[in-house]
Amino acid sequence: MRTIIWNDSSQQLEIIDQRVIPSELRYSVFRDHRQVCTAITEMVVRGAPAIGVAGAFGIVLAALNSPATTLDLLRSDLRIAAAELIASRPTAVNLSSLVNRMVDFSFAFSGNLEELKLALLEKAKSISDEDIQINLAMARFGAELIQNGDQIIHHCNTGALATVDYGTALGVIRMAHEQGKKIHVFVDETRPRLQGARLTAWELEQYGISYDIIVDGASGYFLRSGQVNKVLFGGDRMAANGDVANKIGTYNLALAAYDNSVPVYCVVPTSTIDYSIDSGNEIVIEEREEAEVLGILYQNQQVVPSSASARNPAFDVTPHRLLSAIVTEKGVIYPPYFRNLAELKKP
Amino acid sequence: MRTIIWNDSSQQLEIIDQRVIPSELRYSVFRDHRQVCTAITEMVVRGAPAIGVAGAFGIVLAALNSPATTLDLLRSDLRIAAAELIASRPTAVNLSSLVNRMVDFSFAFSGNLEELKLALLEKAKSISDEDIQINLAMARFGAELIQNGDQIIHHCNTGALATVDYGTALGVIRMAHEQGKKIHVFVDETRPRLQGARLTAWELEQYGISYDIIVDGASGYFLRSGQVNKVLFGGDRMAANGDVANKIGTYNLALAAYDNSVPVYCVVPTSTIDYSIDSGNEIVIEEREEAEVLGILYQNQQVVPSSASARNPAFDVTPHRLLSAIVTEKGVIYPPYFRNLAELKKP
Repeated sequence: MRTIIWNDSSQQLEIIDQRVIPSELRYSVFRDHRQVCTAITEMVVRGAPAIGVAGAFGIVLAALNSPATTLDLLRSDLRIAAAELIASRPTAVNLSSLVNRMVDFSFAFSGNLEELKLALLEKAKSISDEDIQINLAMARFGAELIQNGDQIIHHCNTGALATVDYGTALGVIRMAHEQGKKIHVFVDETRPRLQGARLTAWELEQYGISYDIIVDGASGYFLRSGQVNKVLFGGDRMAANGDVANKIGTYNLALAAYDNSVPVYCVVPTSTIDYSIDSGNEIVIEEREEAEVLGILYQNQQVVPSSASARNPAFDVTPHRLLSAIVTEKGVIYPPYFRNLAELKKP
Repeated sequence: MRTIIWNDSSQQLEIIDQRVIPSELRYSVFRDHRQVCTAITEMVVRGAPAIGVAGAFGIVLAALNSPATTLDLLRSDLRIAAAELIASRPTAVNLSSLVNRMVDFSFAFSGNLEELKLALLEKAKSISDEDIQINLAMARFGAELIQNGDQIIHHCNTGALATVDYGTALGVIRMAHEQGKKIHVFVDETRPRLQGARLTAWELEQYGISYDIIVDGASGYFLRSGQVNKVLFGGDRMAANGDVANKIGTYNLALAAYDNSVPVYCVVPTSTIDYSIDSGNEIVIEEREEAEVLGILYQNQQVVPSSASARNPAFDVTPHRLLSAIVTEKGVIYPPYFRNLAELKKP
């Protein structure tokens, strides 16, 4: 089961609609790149690697739908589509880097118009396959950090649903489980959109991994009372110094782990590292609509006063000093991160 | 408007049902102490000072309903009722201390049976009035720490609803507002039961204080981005060294404030200090039913897988090293807390 599928016969993109899990498992169908933009904004598809691959296929759709009659006109259409796709979620770097990679590919390509369209499709497919291979590599490196009997807090969703398949931080947990290690996961519910309670819990059930959902505010309690010995999460954009933007609540979780000397592992493909920024202070944090915070019912009752207002930043930045290690597809990176992450750039 | 009222004509206890706010404002009526136990367990009434006063009136109801024909038999009935009341929520100290104060009063009393019943009622009423006076005193001391323009994160509900009237930490904010200081409150929604989003937001609307609801995991973001310059919360039990048990999520919030050098003020009446325990490690943390975590709907949809499980500790312990000051009705206490809190015991 892949989160993102290209349907060759219909020439359409199919993506699992993450909004309706766990009630329902269904694919939504996308015919043009603007529908992909909306799917990203509305979080039909979410997770930095998954929206990156969706963006790459968005460029394919833009190419297939383009009325351009010359290579230059097509490239120009792709540039416009790329800007629209990148604007649909500003924080994660994977989206802009994969979309830009597709556009760069079109500029480097030397065939004719129809050949370019086919080549873009093949490129997106190979990016999609590559995502799975990268995730498996990260999972193998990361699983070496996991011991039998580990009790792990995991934030947001970083599983198969957040990627094309297998996942990043949850992929590490899954690999350790497949290696026969007994693991219990404390699933941060991850307000406001509850990706932990909805998606991670659902995935863990599929894999047969033991878990309990906890509210985000309870992580400190479980860490301080000695019930947790690892913390794992993914990342949406990592600065050259290791500071990492990830789903809101990650920074609080990392602080609680640090205060209790519990190791914190951030699991990200090297494509998540944005070497153009020196620290997390330069990362733009998306602020989403207040309805995501206010649109909650507790035991079927309205919760907030009808005139209530909310603030809803979607991400926070965890400073690198709180990370015990960074797991990438090229290996496990330890401090000093600025130097050791820079090493990864070398071929 | 008081949260807890004794109705002299019906000889019944009336308490605002906090479960239905903000949809509805209604009082529930209690005729015996077992109903009060249920109201405390089910959080019809919540907030350490409020459940303490409810417990004191629970002893009055137990006395009025007792078939005892001698003082000794009545006192024995009160002891049994006290044990039942105290068992209804283990973490907050106010409940046990006020219930025990009522029972001790019955042992010290030298009149006859009917006189004792009347005296118990007068005692509970004076405890109730005392709560308001204590809160006003705390609010005056605490308001001196608040400046015009402050942006404050507040956790859970510590307002009029958590007490007989006026509140503890929210009372400080209210007093500062009444003094003409312009304040903006970031309201931690406080999962799982959303006392912030439901009750604190509702109270702030009544008082005309500007606020935004945030998810609990977002506090670190707002602190790190310099949008917050104070953090305030109450407490359910404070050890002799200043460690404080409070609503789950408080420890994570205090860590985030500490990491950003933002002052953290814990506002508690001295009745919340349990001098019999040296540190927070000795505080029993109530773990509540998992339905409180799982029973959430997001945009009217089921969230968790149907077979999901949860862990639900109701409180955590914030170590005293994270507190910048403790606001009590006797003044603002600074470190070293063990020595300075002990000073408060002196008459």
